Amino acid sequence: MLEQLKQEALNANLLLPKYGLITFTWGNVSAIDREKGIVAIKPSGVPYDTMKAEDIVLVDLDGHIVEGDLNPSSDLPTHLEFYRQWKNIGGVVHTHSQWATAFAQAGLDIQALGTTQADYFYGNVPCTRCMTDAEINGNYELETGKVIVETFKERNIDPDQMPGVLVHSHGPFTWGTDAENAVHNAVVLEQCAKMNAISTLLKDNHIDDMQPVLLNKHYLRKHGPNAYYGQHK
Amino acid sequence: MLEQLKQEALNANLLLPKYGLITFTWGNVSAIDREKGIVAIKPSGVPYDTMKAEDIVLVDLDGHIVEGDLNPSSDLPTHLEFYRQWKNIGGVVHTHSQWATAFAQAGLDIQALGTTQADYFYGNVPCTRCMTDAEINGNYELETGKVIVETFKERNIDPDQMPGVLVHSHGPFTWGTDAENAVHNAVVLEQCAKMNAISTLLKDNHIDDMQPVLLNKHYLRKHGPNAYYGQHK
Amino acid sequence: MLEQLKQEALNANLLLPKYGLITFTWGNVSAIDREKGIVAIKPSGVPYDTMKAEDIVLVDLDGHIVEGDLNPSSDLPTHLEFYRQWKNIGGVVHTHSQWATAFAQAGLDIQALGTTQADYFYGNVPCTRCMTDAEINGNYELETGKVIVETFKERNIDPDQMPGVLVHSHGPFTWGTDAENAVHNAVVLEQCAKMNAISTLLKDNHIDDMQPVLLNKHYLRKHGPNAYYGQHK
Amino acid sequence: MLEQLKQEALNANLLLPKYGLITFTWGNVSAIDREKGIVAIKPSGVPYDTMKAEDIVLVDLDGHIVEGDLNPSSDLPTHLEFYRQWKNIGGVVHTHSQWATAFAQAGLDIQALGTTQADYFYGNVPCTRCMTDAEINGNYELETGKVIVETFKERNIDPDQMPGVLVHSHGPFTWGTDAENAVHNAVVLEQCAKMNAISTLLKDNHIDDMQPVLLNKHYLRKHGPNAYYGQHK
Repeated sequence: MLEQLKQEALNANLLLPKYGLITFTWGNVSAIDREKGIVAIKPSGVPYDTMKAEDIVLVDLDGHIVEGDLNPSSDLPTHLEFYRQWKNIGGVVHTHSQWATAFAQAGLDIQALGTTQADYFYGNVPCTRCMTDAEINGNYELETGKVIVETFKERNIDPDQMPGVLVHSHGPFTWGTDAENAVHNAVVLEQCAKMNAISTLLKDNHIDDMQPVLLNKHYLRKHGPNAYYGQHK
Repeated sequence: MLEQLKQEALNANLLLPKYGLITFTWGNVSAIDREKGIVAIKPSGVPYDTMKAEDIVLVDLDGHIVEGDLNPSSDLPTHLEFYRQWKNIGGVVHTHSQWATAFAQAGLDIQALGTTQADYFYGNVPCTRCMTDAEINGNYELETGKVIVETFKERNIDPDQMPGVLVHSHGPFTWGTDAENAVHNAVVLEQCAKMNAISTLLKDNHIDDMQPVLLNKHYLRKHGPNAYYGQHK
Repeated sequence: MLEQLKQEALNANLLLPKYGLITFTWGNVSAIDREKGIVAIKPSGVPYDTMKAEDIVLVDLDGHIVEGDLNPSSDLPTHLEFYRQWKNIGGVVHTHSQWATAFAQAGLDIQALGTTQADYFYGNVPCTRCMTDAEINGNYELETGKVIVETFKERNIDPDQMPGVLVHSHGPFTWGTDAENAVHNAVVLEQCAKMNAISTLLKDNHIDDMQPVLLNKHYLRKHGPNAYYGQHK
Repeated sequence: MLEQLKQEALNANLLLPKYGLITFTWGNVSAIDREKGIVAIKPSGVPYDTMKAEDIVLVDLDGHIVEGDLNPSSDLPTHLEFYRQWKNIGGVVHTHSQWATAFAQAGLDIQALGTTQADYFYGNVPCTRCMTDAEINGNYELETGKVIVETFKERNIDPDQMPGVLVHSHGPFTWGTDAENAVHNAVVLEQCAKMNAISTLLKDNHIDDMQPVLLNKHYLRKHGPNAYYGQHK
C-alpha cells in the first residue's frame, strides 16, 4: 500500500545523513499523498543505516496509524499540523542541524543578509516565541506546530514563500513541494545560518591591515619579473 | 579472561576516531563488569589503528592490574573514582574533543540552551573549579576524579541524569550505562558545546537586513511567473 | 567547434565541488578563447555530477548563443563585462563559498592581514557598494559587472593584481589567466576569508593564561625523567 | 646518496595533506642528518600528489645544493637558521594551517589555556614581533629565522620545550626530534589554536539558560517511566 510514498519518505530521510544535517537519529522527514490524505513518516529512534521502506509508518491526517509496526517519529503531530494548515506543501523535515539550531537557541531569526537566502526564502526565516508552560506540558508536539502556524499568521508570512522556521530553544523545520525539496531547503537553511552567523560576528570588528612592505614582499616574490617562488628559474 | 568486557572496551575506544572526537591517542574509554568488580581500559599512548583486544588492560577497583602487559591509561584513577562513587554507570569516556574542551578552557558550564541538550543532559553540564596546587602536585588523576565528584555533590547534580562534566582547563569526561552509551554521550556533548558556543556568540549581535529590493530580485528570479534561473524556458 | 575550450570550462566547473566551494548548483565557471572572441560557460541550474562537455554553452562577447541547447548561467552578463573590460583574464568564477560570502553579506573587504593573502592578492579584496534600486531592477547581472568594474576604477585597483571581488550582499567572483587559475584563486580567497574572520574576532579578546602549576604537571607527565604517560617504563 | 633522509623528508611532507594542514603547495618539511650536516627539504611549488623522493633537495647548512635538480623551498633559509642555532632538533615544518595562521595574523601568542597545549608546549606559543622594513626587503627568509631565534632568546624560551612559533602576519613553524615529530607538533598546534580561539571568544559571553519547563519536557520524554521517544512501548 502506497509503496511509492514510503519509498519517497525513505529516500528523503536518507538524504539527511548524506548532507550532514543529523547526528544519530536526530531528524525526520515525512511525505504526503494529498489525494489519499495519507502521510508517510520515519519511525522514532531507528538508525538511518538500517532503515528500510517497510519501517516507514503511514498515518492519516489525524495521526491514526494506517500501516506500520513501529512508533512514528514523536514529532509527527507537528508535521500533521503543517499538512492540515498549509495545503500546498508535500514534504516536511525536522533536524537539529548545527548552525540553524544555534539561531533557534539564541531565539533569533536568520536575517536575510544576502542573495543566497533570497534565492530560497523570501525574507528573514522567523524564530517562534517561547512556548508557554501550558503548551509545553500539554500536547507538546502539536502545540509546537500551532505556535509555528501562529508565527506565520501574526507576522503575515506565506509558508509557500518561506519554507522554513526556527522553533525557539529547539531547532529548524523546513518544508517543500515534496519530501526531497523539503530536504533541499533544510540544506540551504543550514548554510544560510552559517554564513549569517559569520557575517553577524564580523560586522562590528575592524582591525588594522598588515604592513604594506610585507604585502609587497610576498606578492612580488610570487609575481612579476623578480619572482623567486617555485620552479621558474 | 573477561574477553567480552575487553572486546566491549576495544569497540568503544574505536568509536572515538570514528566520531572525530580524538586526535592521535588523546582519549580513552573504559568498561566495568560490576559483578566481578573488574574494569577494562585502553592502554596508555597506543595508537587506535593498531589496538587489539589483548592490548586492553584489566584492573580491579583499586587500580591493581589483573591482566595485561601494557600500562593502563594514565587517566585510570579518574575512571575508577567514578566507578567507586557512582554505582549505576557502566562505562567512562575521556576526550579532548574540540568544542567541549574550549568550554573547559574558558572555565564555563555548557548551559542548557536548547532541546538537543535537554534530550540527554538534565541541565547545564557543569565545569569544575580549578584544582589546587596540592591536588595537581599530589595524586593528580585521582584528585581530578574527586573534584568532579565534589562538583556533583555540591551542586546537587545526579550523575545518572547528567552523564558528563568539564574539568577546568582540561576537557570533558562522559559516562553511561555501558561503554558505547558513554561514547554516545561524548558525541552529544561535543555537538551541544558547538551549538551553544555559536548561540552565545550570536546572542548580542544584531545587524541590519539586506536591501528589500535585492531580496525581491533574487527570490523572484528563481520563483514565480517571471523566473529566469535554470532551464525552465 | 571549440571542443578544447568547452572541455576546459567543464573541467574547471568540476573543480568547484572538488574543493568544497559550492552547494547544489550555486556556482559557475567560464573560459574565453580570446582569438575567436568566444566564451564557454556552465549551463544554468544543471547538476555538477551529470554535466558533460556538450552541456557547456558557447556565446560571443555580446552574449549571443553560438552553440548549445541549454540556457547559459544567469550570471553570464557579469562574466562578459569582465572579459570586455579586462583584456588579460582568461577565466571567471562565481561561487557562494561560505566565508567569502559572509564578508560580502557584512559589506566588508577581506583585509590583507597576512602573507597567505599577499601571495595572491595585492591588498584588500574589495567589497562593492550596495547596488541601487535601478541597477537591481534593471539589467541586474550586467549592472553587477559594471559595479565591480567601477569599484576597481574608483579604488584604482589593477584586476591583474587583484583577481577577486566581493559583491555586496551577494558573494565572490574571481578570475585568472585561465579557468583553472580562476578556480585556484577562488580556493585561496575562501581560505583567506576564513583566516581573516578568525583573526578579526580574536584581535581584541585577551583572557588569562592557565594555572602555571597545571601547565607544569601536564608537560612534565609527558616529558623529562619523571614522565609517566605512555609505555616508557 | 642519503636515500633514507630523502625518504624521511618525503614521508613527512606527505603527512601535511593527510592531516589537512595545507592547501595546494603551502607548506614544507625538512629533515637533517646531523652527522653529515645535510638537510633534505621539499622542492618549491611542487604538488604533493606527484612528489617523489628524487624531487627532495639536499643542501648543506649554508644552503649550498648538494643534490637535486629542483629549487628548494623558498623558506629554506628559515629552516637552516633553526638547524644552526638549535642543536637538538631533527626536523622543521612550515604551514599556513588555518587557526594557527589566524593567531599569527592577529599578532597574538597562542596562550596556554589548557592541558592539551601543556602536554606538548611548555607555555604560550610565542608570536614574533613585526619584522622591520629592512628585514623584509633584505634576506627575508633568513631574517625570518633570525627574528624567531631572537624571540626565543629575549623571552627566554627553550626551543626543546616549545617546539613551535608564530611569525607575525605570516603563520606557524614547528620542529621536533625528527621530521615526523615536527609534523605531529604542527597538528597539535593547529588544534590548540582552534580550541583557544573558541575559549577566548566564549570567555566573556554569558547568556540566559533555556526555560526549565522545556528542559524537563525534553529530558523526560526520553528518560524515565513516562518516556515516549523511540520504540520502547
